[in-house]
Amino acid sequence: MKLLIANRGEIAVRIIRAAKELNIPTVAVFSEADREALHVRLADEAYCIGPNPSKDSYLNIPNILSVACAVDATMIHPGYGFLAENAEFAEMSEACGIQFVGPSSYAIRKMGIKDEAKRTMIESGVPVVPGSSGVVTDEEAVELAREIGYPVIIKATAGGGGRGIRVAYDETELVKGLTDTRKEAKQAFGNGDVYLEKYIESFRHVEVQVLADQYGNVIHLGERDCTIQRRMQKLVEEAPSPAIDETTRQAMGDAAVKAAKAIQYSGAGTIEFIYVPEVNEFYFMEMNTRIQVEHPVTEMITGFDLVQAQLEVALGHPLAISQSDITFSGHSIECRINAEDPFADFRPMAGKIDQYIVPGGMGVRVDSGLYAGAVIPPFYDSMVAKLIVHAPTREEAIAKMLRALDEFTVSGIHTTIPFHQQVMAHERFRTGAFDTKFVEKEMTLTK
Amino acid sequence: MKLLIANRGEIAVRIIRAAKELNIPTVAVFSEADREALHVRLADEAYCIGPNPSKDSYLNIPNILSVACAVDATMIHPGYGFLAENAEFAEMSEACGIQFVGPSSYAIRKMGIKDEAKRTMIESGVPVVPGSSGVVTDEEAVELAREIGYPVIIKATAGGGGRGIRVAYDETELVKGLTDTRKEAKQAFGNGDVYLEKYIESFRHVEVQVLADQYGNVIHLGERDCTIQRRMQKLVEEAPSPAIDETTRQAMGDAAVKAAKAIQYSGAGTIEFIYVPEVNEFYFMEMNTRIQVEHPVTEMITGFDLVQAQLEVALGHPLAISQSDITFSGHSIECRINAEDPFADFRPMAGKIDQYIVPGGMGVRVDSGLYAGAVIPPFYDSMVAKLIVHAPTREEAIAKMLRALDEFTVSGIHTTIPFHQQVMAHERFRTGAFDTKFVEKEMTLTK
Repeated sequence: MKLLIANRGEIAVRIIRAAKELNIPTVAVFSEADREALHVRLADEAYCIGPNPSKDSYLNIPNILSVACAVDATMIHPGYGFLAENAEFAEMSEACGIQFVGPSSYAIRKMGIKDEAKRTMIESGVPVVPGSSGVVTDEEAVELAREIGYPVIIKATAGGGGRGIRVAYDETELVKGLTDTRKEAKQAFGNGDVYLEKYIESFRHVEVQVLADQYGNVIHLGERDCTIQRRMQKLVEEAPSPAIDETTRQAMGDAAVKAAKAIQYSGAGTIEFIYVPEVNEFYFMEMNTRIQVEHPVTEMITGFDLVQAQLEVALGHPLAISQSDITFSGHSIECRINAEDPFADFRPMAGKIDQYIVPGGMGVRVDSGLYAGAVIPPFYDSMVAKLIVHAPTREEAIAKMLRALDEFTVSGIHTTIPFHQQVMAHERFRTGAFDTKFVEKEMTLTK
Repeated sequence: MKLLIANRGEIAVRIIRAAKELNIPTVAVFSEADREALHVRLADEAYCIGPNPSKDSYLNIPNILSVACAVDATMIHPGYGFLAENAEFAEMSEACGIQFVGPSSYAIRKMGIKDEAKRTMIESGVPVVPGSSGVVTDEEAVELAREIGYPVIIKATAGGGGRGIRVAYDETELVKGLTDTRKEAKQAFGNGDVYLEKYIESFRHVEVQVLADQYGNVIHLGERDCTIQRRMQKLVEEAPSPAIDETTRQAMGDAAVKAAKAIQYSGAGTIEFIYVPEVNEFYFMEMNTRIQVEHPVTEMITGFDLVQAQLEVALGHPLAISQSDITFSGHSIECRINAEDPFADFRPMAGKIDQYIVPGGMGVRVDSGLYAGAVIPPFYDSMVAKLIVHAPTREEAIAKMLRALDEFTVSGIHTTIPFHQQVMAHERFRTGAFDTKFVEKEMTLTK
């Protein structure tokens, strides 16, 4: 038994930790820029897989699989990002006789094509946003928009991560938006297909964590609220959601389990929902067929290790717990601390970290791939650390997060710590009543 | 409202964290050697209280109280060690109109004089080890030893921390031991009085955490097992104890509450027991009238912040919870990582820490006053960090601790990390069946 981790940074470290606790030997891979990275130090073995650009290393399937075969890896964990939702990578791993820690390539594909995912959800009785039942032509789009009313949102079927998306408030904008989105999607994803939906202006992002084994057992582990975003990038996540009640929690959980069952899902996955508090309605947004950045908040309130569970499922073990074993305790918040200058339009920073003093103590968890003296290379994402707190109540969790942010010392680069301090101190955030436009609309960052 | 922390190192940091989460402004004090210490950085204000030797700074009551008065501190937290169990300090603080975060000087004194503490326990119906009912003369000691049988233990009434204690296996040893112990106690504590007890050769150290408010409400928060010791110094602590069952847990908890009530205790305190598994009997050993080093393992399995509770009690709040609110979840272990060379008879080390990469991730807590580039001065204790883990079962907690120890990087000085790795990997430790002589008798440290 041996696990290769096809990733870098904090998630590679996270996976190594889970594997070590299960006594599974680990193999790290790294680009030239990551020779001194923490995941390289912590793994039992580590191999260079190529030059710095992602496409030459962390996205280089032949290089990764060569290492995996050479070291007799029996499992590959893709983390998030990079190859995590690449069905071909899953398939090729399996073809090499290596267990991919994730769902089948069938499930990845099914959920990766956004319009197909939506169709599957409709068939399974999971609520979706009103809109086209699949890919639309420009003419169909215009007609449908008249029917469901403006504003509408144009989405590339192959889109993701905030790209390949455009909102139109009238027909002129729609026509232009269709052209622009198709062009962008074609360039970014090699596929210009788009579909159309009613655009919901004010909503919360609430998602449900699911876990399934290879034998059709599916449970959910409650929801995460990821409403604090900037340009569709999540910045703060919490569990439970301060916006939903127990009835909605159960309905959402049931819908998520239904969604996972519809595609014979196995492993850890997330069903993302648009939640509209005013009408207490939720609609399927998309499914992420991988472990997510924000998984720790679920771990904190359930006491359940999701990455270990992924490994157990990949090893062919049936789920050790059933739905009724999952209970929630307290409140957890995660702040994504990025190497970005919040006072210069969140410009990403690379460079050497001089001092690096992470917060500690009760109810504080730090998931990071950095240390004093480490270098953040300019080639990858700008994450410094995920700072996660857990306390009996949301109010206490906020107080703890403020305390932890205050003592987090990172020198040599700018970070988003001041931004998070201002979110936590914001009256509106503290009330729990906000939507995904909170950062743009409600916050005035002060230096 | 303002809290002065009359301590240094990890416990000063711990107290600052608790206070910040309660929005209580903090004042640190420091000796010249600690100018760059973490507790100085983290507090809202910080003042130098004197030269490096403890007696000139952290034990210098006038200097500390001068600062407290000058900054209008309303509370003083003494931490553990230094002035934490100094009744005079508690009294003088109160005389200055500053709330001492701890019990009354009456309770400190009552428990500080070991033979008197024992008498109080007998009167309250708390089981004690057979022995003298108070101070003995040499003649009385010899006579009593014949009665209760050898081996016996001679204890200085003013002793503590492993000093002022001697075991005698026969009358010759007893006579010599009495002379030596009196002499040592006279020198160390200014008081040569001794008392005598039956010496129990094989036992476990199991202690119960109690918490009391100023209105007579007392609860306990379960036990900690501190059986892994070296020369009577605790090295590893865990909760719950792997050696006691639910009935004993309740009996011990009840006895601890009785003990605390007997002295009108308020605040957090610990009743230490000798536990003899073979006969399932426990005996009162002593009470520590302060927060203890190992308090985090209790916090991890109860989710209850003991230092915040201390502050709440000092503020005059009644306990927010009752005994039935306390529930235990999972298993927690703490390793005291010291700057000592385990391969050179645990010789303490001072010096600069170059690299300092603390473990993180799920279920890992680090309480430390250090950082990369910090200096461990030679004047105080040798603690680097308390590494605490929490997992669903003891077996998983051990696996997590091994993972965390493995990734803990401290360079520039020797630490006891290798020692702890060997404890955690030891077959006997893993079974849970061991006594306080485990380190001396069962372990062979290998480099």
